[in-house]
Amino acid sequence: MWQNTRLTRLLGIELPIVSSPMAGGPSTSALAAAVSDAGGLGSLGLGYSTPDDIRAAIRATRALTDAAFQINLFVPPPEPPLLDAAAVGQVEEMVAELRSDLGLPVRLPVPERLSVPFADQTAVLIEERVPVAGFAFGVPPADTVAALRENGTVVFATATSVAEARALVAAGVQVVTAQGAEAGGHRGQFVGGDGSGPREEGTPVGDPIGTMALVPAVVDALGADVPVVAAGGLRDGRSVLAVLALGADAAQLGTAFLRTPEAGTNEPYRAALAAADGSETVLTTAFSGKPARGLRNAYVDAVGVRPDVPPYPVTHVLTTELRAAARAAGRSDLQSLWAGQGVAGARDLPAGRLLGLWVDEIEAILEDWRS
Amino acid sequence: MWQNTRLTRLLGIELPIVSSPMAGGPSTSALAAAVSDAGGLGSLGLGYSTPDDIRAAIRATRALTDAAFQINLFVPPPEPPLLDAAAVGQVEEMVAELRSDLGLPVRLPVPERLSVPFADQTAVLIEERVPVAGFAFGVPPADTVAALRENGTVVFATATSVAEARALVAAGVQVVTAQGAEAGGHRGQFVGGDGSGPREEGTPVGDPIGTMALVPAVVDALGADVPVVAAGGLRDGRSVLAVLALGADAAQLGTAFLRTPEAGTNEPYRAALAAADGSETVLTTAFSGKPARGLRNAYVDAVGVRPDVPPYPVTHVLTTELRAAARAAGRSDLQSLWAGQGVAGARDLPAGRLLGLWVDEIEAILEDWRS
Repeated sequence: MWQNTRLTRLLGIELPIVSSPMAGGPSTSALAAAVSDAGGLGSLGLGYSTPDDIRAAIRATRALTDAAFQINLFVPPPEPPLLDAAAVGQVEEMVAELRSDLGLPVRLPVPERLSVPFADQTAVLIEERVPVAGFAFGVPPADTVAALRENGTVVFATATSVAEARALVAAGVQVVTAQGAEAGGHRGQFVGGDGSGPREEGTPVGDPIGTMALVPAVVDALGADVPVVAAGGLRDGRSVLAVLALGADAAQLGTAFLRTPEAGTNEPYRAALAAADGSETVLTTAFSGKPARGLRNAYVDAVGVRPDVPPYPVTHVLTTELRAAARAAGRSDLQSLWAGQGVAGARDLPAGRLLGLWVDEIEAILEDWRS
Repeated sequence: MWQNTRLTRLLGIELPIVSSPMAGGPSTSALAAAVSDAGGLGSLGLGYSTPDDIRAAIRATRALTDAAFQINLFVPPPEPPLLDAAAVGQVEEMVAELRSDLGLPVRLPVPERLSVPFADQTAVLIEERVPVAGFAFGVPPADTVAALRENGTVVFATATSVAEARALVAAGVQVVTAQGAEAGGHRGQFVGGDGSGPREEGTPVGDPIGTMALVPAVVDALGADVPVVAAGGLRDGRSVLAVLALGADAAQLGTAFLRTPEAGTNEPYRAALAAADGSETVLTTAFSGKPARGLRNAYVDAVGVRPDVPPYPVTHVLTTELRAAARAAGRSDLQSLWAGQGVAGARDLPAGRLLGLWVDEIEAILEDWRS
């Protein structure tokens, strides 16, 4: 049975399908519960959320479903970047015209802190004994992983290379999400290298690796004990079966759920997704300081590719007001429109209905191969 | 049966597996014949070859196999670029240190012409009635396509987007090779756009599209009558089955054959491939003026990403002597080392043996899904 994978056995779920966490609005308790109720693993991206909001979201999801679901957080960088006057000045100048277009003053509001303390966020996941805890942007601390696992929580984390996958498993992570270059939203890359000096095997020194190449490489590197979830460019049942053929234990889709009624996607964002065909996404650091894939729009074109943009989360916090104002004004041209290269597969159908359609597509392909 | 696709029926071949053309040395008559004899479609990339050499290669391949094979050529750009003093000076300065490292004079030898006349090349394919003619880098002229098809030749061409795939079919192309971002060697992209003004659906304005996302998009756009070959990041039986799940009618692998004894890959290139794990490939225009994916090496690092490098084939012809000297000196650091992101799958085994292993892998996956 194609549904019988190391991940569906580990979690006791019916379908090897995961919804992407999609922090910042799109993922909701309703979407996560709908995916989990349909037999998959629904996910909530809460990397930007306060402990109280995380607790409330966990409880809201539990009220909607008895099935397992994932709460996903962002691992902070080892050295927090400086939110200093130089960074503020740089972003201020970069987005000045865009802010004035939205009627905002040129002077940027500067927040007191760069992000919610990670330890406070993870404490909630431990206290609430979430079924699945997921991490992106880095290696979660080994003691946090151990505390979660002691609770019976299954720990996921995201890798974009073989070297990252190995680092995650070394810290106790149980399930690795292999994120290919096609994926929408932020890239999880955290191991870099300039190519000089001796290189640990699998350390990325080249371009982002596509899903087709990354998944078997990670599966082979991690061996029999670590289930792998494949993400990036997936759109429907064909993609789910494709990544299972590559050796993955589940397919993770995010963009495919962005137009569902359960998603928190705002209206101008939905309209832009409906008009997209997959040939217009770009990787850009323009919104947050971290490479992320989204639909090319006026903001991306105006800011351009700036290798010197202040690092995440500095640029993220300094552009928050602008992006919120764009959303409030119903404008898609000045907000981030995260989307993967499989965006043409995003359909305006309930999430559970999508999973049912994908299962039908898979069964039809297998039937065709049998005859 | 997974082997039964629109392409295997059209060509009367056994396996939906194509070897990539790989012009410039790696593809040989022996490799093409071995792949075709094993049930796939072997290919010879002869875009750089003279009419006499093309004729000889076709005859040599026919002497080795009775099965169908592909001869692949490069469609020239609509406006031939200038091989002028400015371009020569620019490349001369760019590679001066690398040339002196190889003992070559700084002054570049300037060839009389940029490329072999395309009409003379295609005339040979028509005269020799090749089983399959393939084209990359553009839309082949409709009258050439018609003349080939009148002969019973099946016409393939390469697309990197939905817009390109549609343009090829409009010119009479029968089979479209969808080349994902992971692919090694030159990218076939020929339709561009700056994103301004009205945009025809599928015209690329974003980053190169990965195989996982591109294949179903092209399959859906072209409909029931046009078989699609999937290329980019494929490495073994898992990848072949994955692209068939995506709706492709065959899988095209190139890098996977580079280490076979039948390939023309030079020794330092083979050694670099054997040491690669897939995390070190980059898209670069540094060797030819056209984006191509290969292993990062000293040449790539020295030349860097230059958006202003003279366009293909100007840079290509001006770096030919340097690359040949590097090969002759047994050096991998100053030659192009084209490789896709699935390079870790390249194995030093006969091509026919590889196809047999991939079939076994596919049967094992399908058996696992059945039980």
